[in-house]
Amino acid sequence: MAATPEFPSLDKLITSTLSGNELNEYNRIHYGRTNHHQLSNTKESSDLAEKHKFDIALYDFPANKEETRSPRIVRIGAIQHSITNATDNPIAEQRQGIFNKIRNLIEAAANENVNILCLQEAWSMPFAFCTREKYPWCEFAESALEGPSTLFLKELAAKFGMVIISPILERDEAHGDTIWNTAVVINETGKVIGKHRKNHIPRVGDFNESTYYFEGNTGHPVFETNFGKIAINICYGRHHPLNWLMFGINGAEIVFNPSATVSGLSEHLWPVEARNAAIANSYYTCAINRVGTEKFPNEFTSGDGKPAHKEFGHFYGSSYITAPDGVRTPGLSRVRDGLLISQIDLNMCRQIRDKWGFTMTQRLNLYAESLNDAVKHDYKQQIIRNN
Amino acid sequence: MAATPEFPSLDKLITSTLSGNELNEYNRIHYGRTNHHQLSNTKESSDLAEKHKFDIALYDFPANKEETRSPRIVRIGAIQHSITNATDNPIAEQRQGIFNKIRNLIEAAANENVNILCLQEAWSMPFAFCTREKYPWCEFAESALEGPSTLFLKELAAKFGMVIISPILERDEAHGDTIWNTAVVINETGKVIGKHRKNHIPRVGDFNESTYYFEGNTGHPVFETNFGKIAINICYGRHHPLNWLMFGINGAEIVFNPSATVSGLSEHLWPVEARNAAIANSYYTCAINRVGTEKFPNEFTSGDGKPAHKEFGHFYGSSYITAPDGVRTPGLSRVRDGLLISQIDLNMCRQIRDKWGFTMTQRLNLYAESLNDAVKHDYKQQIIRNN
Repeated sequence: MAATPEFPSLDKLITSTLSGNELNEYNRIHYGRTNHHQLSNTKESSDLAEKHKFDIALYDFPANKEETRSPRIVRIGAIQHSITNATDNPIAEQRQGIFNKIRNLIEAAANENVNILCLQEAWSMPFAFCTREKYPWCEFAESALEGPSTLFLKELAAKFGMVIISPILERDEAHGDTIWNTAVVINETGKVIGKHRKNHIPRVGDFNESTYYFEGNTGHPVFETNFGKIAINICYGRHHPLNWLMFGINGAEIVFNPSATVSGLSEHLWPVEARNAAIANSYYTCAINRVGTEKFPNEFTSGDGKPAHKEFGHFYGSSYITAPDGVRTPGLSRVRDGLLISQIDLNMCRQIRDKWGFTMTQRLNLYAESLNDAVKHDYKQQIIRNN
Repeated sequence: MAATPEFPSLDKLITSTLSGNELNEYNRIHYGRTNHHQLSNTKESSDLAEKHKFDIALYDFPANKEETRSPRIVRIGAIQHSITNATDNPIAEQRQGIFNKIRNLIEAAANENVNILCLQEAWSMPFAFCTREKYPWCEFAESALEGPSTLFLKELAAKFGMVIISPILERDEAHGDTIWNTAVVINETGKVIGKHRKNHIPRVGDFNESTYYFEGNTGHPVFETNFGKIAINICYGRHHPLNWLMFGINGAEIVFNPSATVSGLSEHLWPVEARNAAIANSYYTCAINRVGTEKFPNEFTSGDGKPAHKEFGHFYGSSYITAPDGVRTPGLSRVRDGLLISQIDLNMCRQIRDKWGFTMTQRLNLYAESLNDAVKHDYKQQIIRNN
């Protein structure tokens, strides 16, 4: 499958091609509703978006009214973006270039009253793990509490009264200088309330991440913010239903999936996995992928028999949000920076649990027992033979 | 969301609307490949299909050649169909009407050298569980070993040398006359090699199945046939990632998902869940849904505040097959009976496990432990508070 960086998105193609009842049927069957409930954004945000060449899209997810609980309506946002500088520029310049870009997107999010904002995986650096080179890339690793990315975002979080999730390359100096793929959660007063380390690490194609960091050791934390209970399933963890499940068990109402993934590898999986997680766990999910093609100074190989090269494949963006009832937004562009916002009612999580009953019918005891057996070295698979 | 029985399918709409590079991009991003690898069928099958008004579609899923294993190519088939008689006809006539129809579809499958064929959930009866009436519907329940559906299919299985999965309403006379939602596995010599009982039972809308039968007590068996290791995740079990997971842990290479589900409830979830399961577990999945609108003699209500009525919603068919790499076939029609066949190489399961590494990176020990904790009555969720 060829990478096609220039193709804007399936969502745009469908909207520009179909109309009337056909478009309605497409929307109903594919997205789960005929009306996307698109909201308009402020002029300030439109101006920012035009000036700084990013897209902005807002959608509403109304829930049913309840008699005994008030609606709990919050706005969540996701930012997808390309890097700004050549990857052989000084590290501080590469990072500052991204900071300068991101500031505009965050300002637009603030204009739209976003309460919780999530950036993409390793947002303040190129996704250099394709190279297997330790330097200079390990120098991007920074302290979760007081690294440059955290300091930059703490200020904006406090200024705009916004929770910001900041997925970075973390260096833990207090524990042997180890490096981790980590999401830092900064609350709306600018305080770091905690962090989560990526639980599942890929070893596939150009994703040589196990060369740099281990599987996370922070469990499945849910962060109880003033705008809802949130969790972060970083990138490759989206292939693991058990990872999604544990965040749900711990009470998550929104799970963000900051990612970096390329066409040719995962594009046909992208609309499936985070959406399935929302359905299976009756919570909101927000899948975020970077955009653009990143070029590195030295050649690297991809373990696919092809010649050495300097370019990663195309990061295809396409960030999207899914509600607990499986209804999803159109995706952002495959090629442009973008800010995706949804206005959601957290009450929908419990409403869908009550209606569909997936947690009630889950038989968790059965599976706790089955998995306990399955991990034993002498486990016997339940096989019925043909004789 | 209105039910729209007349709309043939999104797949057909897209094929008739897009062309050239746009169609290629749609196919690549949506289905996972630009070429569906459609195979042609025999003239005998085309004649049968035309005469008896059903669709037939064949797709190939080629895998890589390996040096140390020969390809293990088999053909799997799925049948979706509507009922034939009014639901107030005598039970024997209703069942015989379906038998007469199904015989033609099975003959077409035999013409195409299908090795393993799966029928839809409760294939030999109307899906009467919306009524909450015990009679006459419980009279459709039959012995897994020697009930009329099994006897009918044993003969065809032996005649055509085909494994047939027969999802029925089972009555277990040896255990208190209990009723179960069961899939019977008949091998290519016509012998019943075992059965599996539906693990997760819905209580949603018109799916009042918990009124009739309990959660299955047969675990997660994998049937080692001469054409591969197969399992059956019946209907509502597709919402439960743990159910899919255990079939994978027990070695399944193909998991069938015989279903009965209606538009308005699940149509936007349908393309997501069985496909996600194929991806997450590196095996083939085959999702099968009945077609048509079934009308019952007496009024029933749907627990949705709407007036009593006699018609179930529209069963939207749309059966489809997904490979371990997430590539899927177009779906069968939303409205017509159909036979969907795929030629698959079972070797792809291990190839994708080796390539993507989802089982290696699964951290099953961690989750066995976490679930064991989670089911305890005094379980404390891992919550990081905002203070």
